[in-house]
Amino acid sequence: MDRVFHALADATRRAMVERLVRGPASVSELARSHAMSLQAVMQHLQVLEACGLVRSEKVGRVRTCHIEPQPLRSVEEWIVRRRTDWERRLDRLGDQLAEDPATTE
Amino acid sequence: MDRVFHALADATRRAMVERLVRGPASVSELARSHAMSLQAVMQHLQVLEACGLVRSEKVGRVRTCHIEPQPLRSVEEWIVRRRTDWERRLDRLGDQLAEDPATTE
Repeated sequence: MDRVFHALADATRRAMVERLVRGPASVSELARSHAMSLQAVMQHLQVLEACGLVRSEKVGRVRTCHIEPQPLRSVEEWIVRRRTDWERRLDRLGDQLAEDPATTE
Repeated sequence: MDRVFHALADATRRAMVERLVRGPASVSELARSHAMSLQAVMQHLQVLEACGLVRSEKVGRVRTCHIEPQPLRSVEEWIVRRRTDWERRLDRLGDQLAEDPATTE
């Protein structure tokens, strides 16, 4: 979880994820669409692969990158649970205010 | 966005967020419940405040921390959009497979 959040804490890596959820791409396609050197793409790719967000495979001279949806799902679940806890707390506060004679008088 | 993801890339800070979505807490309560020094809590608090996830106010000698839900919402929206793009792509792949005579014969 630490590593997934860390990987997403960079605008270029988020842009690579945004691209890859729409379909696989080669390293050179990623470099072109983000106006980066192949070396810079490879460095970001290492971070994305280390946390499981992306996997890549090399066939001949072309390395193709694919998104792996599970880490995104885990992060989404964590966030949604926090939002739900927060909304529950607001509901309880609302109920307490409604029951408090000082606020309804 | 970078700073919110960075702030959440630490298990202790995520635990502080988990605690604060359930209600405000003082710095010493956070230190007690996470078995940390006040200084360590203050350091994590600085990161959480810098990205807007938490605000704190000092009344007398007590500093009380509150969650701010908007940054969590922004992160949730980013993730949900990626998941939706991913699911759309899977749907399109499914449609293509269904239309491809080679797979239906």
